[in-house]
Amino acid sequence: MTDNPIGSRASRASRTPLSLLGTGTMGTALARAWLAAGHPVTVWNRTPARAEPLAADGATVAASAADAVAASRLVVVCLLDDASVGDALEGADLSGRDLVNLTTGTPAQGRARAAWAEARGARFLDAGIMAVPPMIGDARSGAYVLYSGSPALFEEHGDTLAVPAGTRYVGADPGFAALHDVALLSAMSGMFAGVLHAFALIRGEDVAPKDFAPLLVSWLGAMAPAAFGAAEQLQSGDYGRDVVSSLAMQVAGNATLLATAEEQGLSAELLTPYMALLERWLAEGHGDEDTTGAVELLDLRRMRGGRPA
Amino acid sequence: MTDNPIGSRASRASRTPLSLLGTGTMGTALARAWLAAGHPVTVWNRTPARAEPLAADGATVAASAADAVAASRLVVVCLLDDASVGDALEGADLSGRDLVNLTTGTPAQGRARAAWAEARGARFLDAGIMAVPPMIGDARSGAYVLYSGSPALFEEHGDTLAVPAGTRYVGADPGFAALHDVALLSAMSGMFAGVLHAFALIRGEDVAPKDFAPLLVSWLGAMAPAAFGAAEQLQSGDYGRDVVSSLAMQVAGNATLLATAEEQGLSAELLTPYMALLERWLAEGHGDEDTTGAVELLDLRRMRGGRPA
Repeated sequence: MTDNPIGSRASRASRTPLSLLGTGTMGTALARAWLAAGHPVTVWNRTPARAEPLAADGATVAASAADAVAASRLVVVCLLDDASVGDALEGADLSGRDLVNLTTGTPAQGRARAAWAEARGARFLDAGIMAVPPMIGDARSGAYVLYSGSPALFEEHGDTLAVPAGTRYVGADPGFAALHDVALLSAMSGMFAGVLHAFALIRGEDVAPKDFAPLLVSWLGAMAPAAFGAAEQLQSGDYGRDVVSSLAMQVAGNATLLATAEEQGLSAELLTPYMALLERWLAEGHGDEDTTGAVELLDLRRMRGGRPA
Repeated sequence: MTDNPIGSRASRASRTPLSLLGTGTMGTALARAWLAAGHPVTVWNRTPARAEPLAADGATVAASAADAVAASRLVVVCLLDDASVGDALEGADLSGRDLVNLTTGTPAQGRARAAWAEARGARFLDAGIMAVPPMIGDARSGAYVLYSGSPALFEEHGDTLAVPAGTRYVGADPGFAALHDVALLSAMSGMFAGVLHAFALIRGEDVAPKDFAPLLVSWLGAMAPAAFGAAEQLQSGDYGRDVVSSLAMQVAGNATLLATAEEQGLSAELLTPYMALLERWLAEGHGDEDTTGAVELLDLRRMRGGRPA
């Protein structure tokens, strides 16, 4: 049950037949990658006109979702949301099927869908695609898919799943793929918010965005590994361990960030919630520690007076 | 006027004497790096006891800031804030001096301080240190200092300045070092906010932070180059150019991030301002474009009905 870079074992794959439900932009990219690698692929889409172009690539177009499920033991679902998965599979016989759910959802949806599939006699893997459609099937793109759920299913079909994108199995808990997916996307969202504020700062000045971008990208790449230190602190529960820049120093430094935003005529709305969180943690007496402990303030159970997780 | 990696030309430096005002943690690290490279260093600190330990490393401790300024043509200032710079240098004769200001400040402070120094007969460089003290003097740390202001000063003293950390000259406008500094720190602040939310998400689950961190760091490193695309769009003013994931799709995807935060019992306060900004930009009809254009919403002049920058 090892993780595979995209396509690494594709040449050894036994060209397992598979059915794919959902041929939107992502589903179509996935289908094309499997077809290109020689896998027999049956496709279905709620709007048939969106599935038909794949026939030219060699796909069999099923008339119904139930037919598509009946056509292959390995069934991959890539639909709009979890409710669409329930709707599409309602009349299908899932008994003995290996269901791989690439539909975006929450950890709780992944867990509930796993129980639902198992109750219908299927093995189940939930998944989170860490890529946009143009990256699918391109071994150099770095695209990968997070999987969690049935280890036996992943063991058996890992090679086939590795055809369109690299695979990372993150645990038997079927909620873990979505949990990791959402955690990574949330971190990215924060980074993109910061990047937007940074570009806003230089926007009114005689600084070319193209000259600034290399500095920005290398700086973010150099600072991201601070997350390793945060992980150590979270693991040990000791937020005062190996402190590089103390909470008190960071809070003090934020004044310059705010003053500069004001000078440049900018709203600091993308920065202020994190600054406010750090100030609250400072007020609780953690000035000599790292900022990592402020994670506790995000826990609503703590805020409601319950026990922290 | 090329940028130098740390210490790259230190061996060829003519061991220019210099004076350093401010021997806090950063100033002390800087002084030690210059002393270790054989530069004669005169130090001054408002609290003399904080400068005296450097005498053991070979520094001359000046009795006053004016004495320190008189001792060397190259004067480096690393104090608490811009007001401290004005206070310390008030009685000093700056005529003919090369003043390098490593004190953290805003672009406007850098510009005002440059005019102030030039009026007193000094050449001036403002600077932003992209490092924490333990990185100073360590050629492998990636530490660097942004400089802007007098090109002649940078040309003459670039080698000496490259001793404690790499140098990057970002323009003759003395406000540019602080502008770049604050822009990079602001982007980092956003990234760290996202990282904190990500760790909060896995915190209540059976996922070890140390197992998650490598995934997180490589994901952020892989996604940071999206800033190159944003720079192209800003440069061209065409936010619909080379769209990888449309604003409409990203806004739709945010629902899963919010639902997951709620499932995990977390406040989404670190994510919601960016999501709200994107929704406002979507409401203005930019759904098919990239998210980059939302930068315009941060411009308070636009919001007040004035012309955007």
